[in-house]
Amino acid sequence: MKFATLRPAADQPPVVALIDTAGQRYWPLSDLLPEFQGDMQQLIHDWEALRDQIATQGEGRLLDGARLEPPLHPQRNMFCVGKNYFEHAAEFSGSGYDSSTSADDVVPKFPIIFTKAYNTLVAHGDEIPRHAEVTEQLDYEAEFAVIIGKGGSGIKKAEAYDHVWGYTIANDVTARDLQKKHKQWHLGKSLDGLCPMGPWVVTADEMDRDNATIKCWVNGELRQDARLDQLIFDVPTLIETLSAGITLAPGDVILTGTPVGVGIGFTPPRFLQTGDIVRIEVDAIGVLENRVGR
Amino acid sequence: MKFATLRPAADQPPVVALIDTAGQRYWPLSDLLPEFQGDMQQLIHDWEALRDQIATQGEGRLLDGARLEPPLHPQRNMFCVGKNYFEHAAEFSGSGYDSSTSADDVVPKFPIIFTKAYNTLVAHGDEIPRHAEVTEQLDYEAEFAVIIGKGGSGIKKAEAYDHVWGYTIANDVTARDLQKKHKQWHLGKSLDGLCPMGPWVVTADEMDRDNATIKCWVNGELRQDARLDQLIFDVPTLIETLSAGITLAPGDVILTGTPVGVGIGFTPPRFLQTGDIVRIEVDAIGVLENRVGR
Repeated sequence: MKFATLRPAADQPPVVALIDTAGQRYWPLSDLLPEFQGDMQQLIHDWEALRDQIATQGEGRLLDGARLEPPLHPQRNMFCVGKNYFEHAAEFSGSGYDSSTSADDVVPKFPIIFTKAYNTLVAHGDEIPRHAEVTEQLDYEAEFAVIIGKGGSGIKKAEAYDHVWGYTIANDVTARDLQKKHKQWHLGKSLDGLCPMGPWVVTADEMDRDNATIKCWVNGELRQDARLDQLIFDVPTLIETLSAGITLAPGDVILTGTPVGVGIGFTPPRFLQTGDIVRIEVDAIGVLENRVGR
Repeated sequence: MKFATLRPAADQPPVVALIDTAGQRYWPLSDLLPEFQGDMQQLIHDWEALRDQIATQGEGRLLDGARLEPPLHPQRNMFCVGKNYFEHAAEFSGSGYDSSTSADDVVPKFPIIFTKAYNTLVAHGDEIPRHAEVTEQLDYEAEFAVIIGKGGSGIKKAEAYDHVWGYTIANDVTARDLQKKHKQWHLGKSLDGLCPMGPWVVTADEMDRDNATIKCWVNGELRQDARLDQLIFDVPTLIETLSAGITLAPGDVILTGTPVGVGIGFTPPRFLQTGDIVRIEVDAIGVLENRVGR
C-alpha cells in the first residue's frame, strides 16, 4: 500500500491518505477507518492492528486537487549514511569536499552516520530554498529512504527487514561549502528545506528492493542512475549497525546514501541554481520533483 | 529561577517543578499555576506569559523524595559543538581519535556541529550504560548547555542572548572507538544513555555566564576545570552560525563543547569503567553526577 500525508485543500489540516496503485487517487484514512484520527507516526505505531482493515472504498478523490506534505514528521533527526555507493565514494573523495578522507578510507570500512533534522523536510512539489546568503554550492543527492516499523535494539541482519515498515524517496540536498568548512556534516546538510521527501511511502511488502533502481535528473538531464543493490552497506547492515547501541523507534528514518553523479562529481562542479528542477524516481515508489527557489 | 522535570514519587508521572535557590525543595508548577499542565517545552513556549506569575508558595516539598528526569525532551536532536576550547582542540587532535584533523585545522576555523538524539538523555543520578558489547573506549565530556527560548533565523550575535531561555549541564559521553571508525561522530555520540543532563535548568537571568567555571571529577579526581569565557566560539557566535540557515525553535538545545582533560587526553588514555562516578559542576547551575553502569 501507498500512504501520503496531504491537505485535501490548501486551507485544510494534513491527513494521512491511502493512495491508489497508479498514484492518481486517494482516500483519507479516517474515511476508511473512522476511529483513526492520527498522523503517519500513529499509523506506523498501530500498523499491526490496522493493516488488515485498510481497503479502498468507492472511487476516492483526485490527487490533483490535494497538496502533498512530507510523508512523516520524525521524532528525532533522520539518520543519514555517507559514501554508501562505491563510485560515489570515489567521486566524493576525489572532489576535495570530503574533510574526513585519508588515502586508506576512500571507500568507508564502516557506515558513516550523520543526521538531518525536521526543519529540512519539504514535500514533493515544494521549492528547495536556495540559501544564497550562506552557500554558493548547493548540491543534490538522490536517496532511497527506509522507515522503521517495529523498534528495537540489537537487531541482527537476518531479522532487519522485519523492522522495516516502508520506503520513500529523499533528496539529501547539501551545501558543499558548509559541509567542508564545518568538518562534521550536520550544518551543511540541515539548512531549512534541504530534504525534499516523498511523494509518499510504500509499505515494505509492495517493493522488490533488490531489483529497483534510483534515477535523478536535473533539468531533464540524467545525472544519477543506480541499482539499490549496489549499496556498500545494505539496509540490514545499516539497521544492525545503528541498533547495536541505539534503540530504534517506530517512525525512525534512514537515508541510505546517494549514488555517483552528484554536482561535485563534475569538473567543474555543477551546483544547483535558482529555477533548476531536480527529479528523482525510484521504481515502485514514484517521483519526487522539486524546483530550486530564490 | 530553576526548573526541573521530576517524578514526585517513582510511580508518578513527571511534572515540571520550580526548585529553590539552595536546590533542596521544590514546588510542582501546577500547584503554583493551576492552569499549567504542560512539560518543560510548554513552559518555554509560554514563558513570556507565565514568568511573572511564578513564585514559591509555602515551604514546598523536599527534593530528596523526588526522582529527577532529564530537564526536557527536545523536538529534534541536540546541536553539539566539537573542539570548542583551545587546549581540548589540541588534546583531541593529538590523541589520534580525530578523523577530521589535518595539520592546518587543529583549532577549528568554523564551529564543528554534530548532534545527539533523545535516546541519549538520562537524568542526574541515573546510570550511564557501559555498552561493553559495542565500545571499549567510553569517555566523558563535561559541557555547558544552552536552551533556546525565542526561536528564529538570521539571529545576529548582538541579539543572540535575547533568544536564550536557560542553561543546564550535560555530559557528552562518547564511544571514542566508534567516533573514530565511523568518521562522522553521530553514532559514537548517540548510543542510548550517553547524555546525562541536568540536574535542572537555570533561567538565563540568573546566571553570570562570563564568570562561571565548569569542573569535572572522575572518582573524586579533578579532570576538567575551565572558565566558560574560554570557548573558541562563544554562545552568540554559535547561535548566529546555526540560525543563519536553520530556524531555531523554542526548546532547542546546544551543547557548547568540552574543555581539556577528557580521558583520551591522558597517555595512556583513561576510559570510563563500570562503577566510575563522573561529577560535573557549573557555577549557578549545580551538580550533575552519574555512575557508569554495567
